Amino acid sequence: MRVKAVIAYDGTEYRGFQLQVEVPTIQAELEQVLARLACAPVRVLVAGRTDAGVHAEGQVIAFDVSWKHSLGKLQRGMNALLPEAIVVREVDEVPASFHPRFDAVSRHYRYTIYRAPMRNPFFSRYSLHMPSFLDVNAMQTAADTLVGRHDFGAFGSPPQGDNTVREVMCAKWQEKEDWLTFDVEANAFLYRMMRILVGTLLRVGGQSLTPARIAECLQTQERDRTGPAVAAKGLCLMAVRY
Amino acid sequence: MRVKAVIAYDGTEYRGFQLQVEVPTIQAELEQVLARLACAPVRVLVAGRTDAGVHAEGQVIAFDVSWKHSLGKLQRGMNALLPEAIVVREVDEVPASFHPRFDAVSRHYRYTIYRAPMRNPFFSRYSLHMPSFLDVNAMQTAADTLVGRHDFGAFGSPPQGDNTVREVMCAKWQEKEDWLTFDVEANAFLYRMMRILVGTLLRVGGQSLTPARIAECLQTQERDRTGPAVAAKGLCLMAVRY
Repeated sequence: MRVKAVIAYDGTEYRGFQLQVEVPTIQAELEQVLARLACAPVRVLVAGRTDAGVHAEGQVIAFDVSWKHSLGKLQRGMNALLPEAIVVREVDEVPASFHPRFDAVSRHYRYTIYRAPMRNPFFSRYSLHMPSFLDVNAMQTAADTLVGRHDFGAFGSPPQGDNTVREVMCAKWQEKEDWLTFDVEANAFLYRMMRILVGTLLRVGGQSLTPARIAECLQTQERDRTGPAVAAKGLCLMAVRY
Repeated sequence: MRVKAVIAYDGTEYRGFQLQVEVPTIQAELEQVLARLACAPVRVLVAGRTDAGVHAEGQVIAFDVSWKHSLGKLQRGMNALLPEAIVVREVDEVPASFHPRFDAVSRHYRYTIYRAPMRNPFFSRYSLHMPSFLDVNAMQTAADTLVGRHDFGAFGSPPQGDNTVREVMCAKWQEKEDWLTFDVEANAFLYRMMRILVGTLLRVGGQSLTPARIAECLQTQERDRTGPAVAAKGLCLMAVRY
């Protein structure tokens, strides 16, 4: 049967989701555990191949497995064998045609910035520390221009070299106490798109770039004005919609 | 001049506070950074020598340093050079006679338990996951018997082999959503005392030990009924009072 699972992970110690030779990856951990439980090799499909250091609260995977017990038992077995950095939050049986990447309607990523004057050792794995002044209103004005169907070629590269048009449904900065978060929901993301968007909007926040320039980047695909990609550790895949 | 500093750290990757040969310790990181800033060896004194994996929100250290700039500059210099797992929260000049351990009136430790049915990768470094039933009222009744001046010989060993009498000012369990915390303030703690206390009170919570047995342990110093020390990762030195 084909199983869909929602998983969460702390990506700090991993070289991303996707299997690579001789480095720790989320996929390798999952496939090792599933092979032990199923007594057979299991290949894991994924909704979003997160980069090294990127976290997930709601990553979606799917795999084919022959399993005679309940799904609850499969989930408990996986959670018993997986390292503490990875947990299976939900499991469901799905039709054999289900594909977590191709069937996804949208992905929701969040970038988290910690703005207190002093850094905090307990937050440093999961956020970017940025105590300097930020014009969050300007950052939201710039974010508003991202919403819709645009060519995001200035903000990242496509995974398979195909087109760079993506549709952003929502792009929202939120301030709460010492925290600033940027939530983006899009049909799909280019490679490093979220981190380059944040790096660019932080330039708007630092007033070295006007919000109008962001609209220009979307029209011209020029990379000259886009900021550097910010650190992976502040990024988290929150949810995938189907 | 003698400087007192309040520091916080994520102890996960360290073999405790105290300097040891060829293993990472908090003291080694601090002394390396201070030596670079002062261009001379600096010895760091500490209020509480936390164990491997134990965290701190309010550890207190002191050191002698010849420093011609402001204290704020010393703090910023330390925070710039220290790894992300360690931060200096406050610095003050103190009399040369100040000793962070001998002058301390009390220490406040907190143990944190995460009680949601499923473990969470983002909390696992800083809490013990325990989803099973706990009779928190019984645990508080047992904790109440700890308050006062007692021989805690059943709950730990003294660092220098001296006496095992300690005074507990406060011992309080608190529940909030999925979290259960145990706060203890005492004049001083025996080696592993906090973790053995929690291990023992969890037996009371699991109803395999009655609260009255705790009072007996305090009277007889018998170790037969005390629980095992719980994981270091749930423990944090919150504050030191002078």
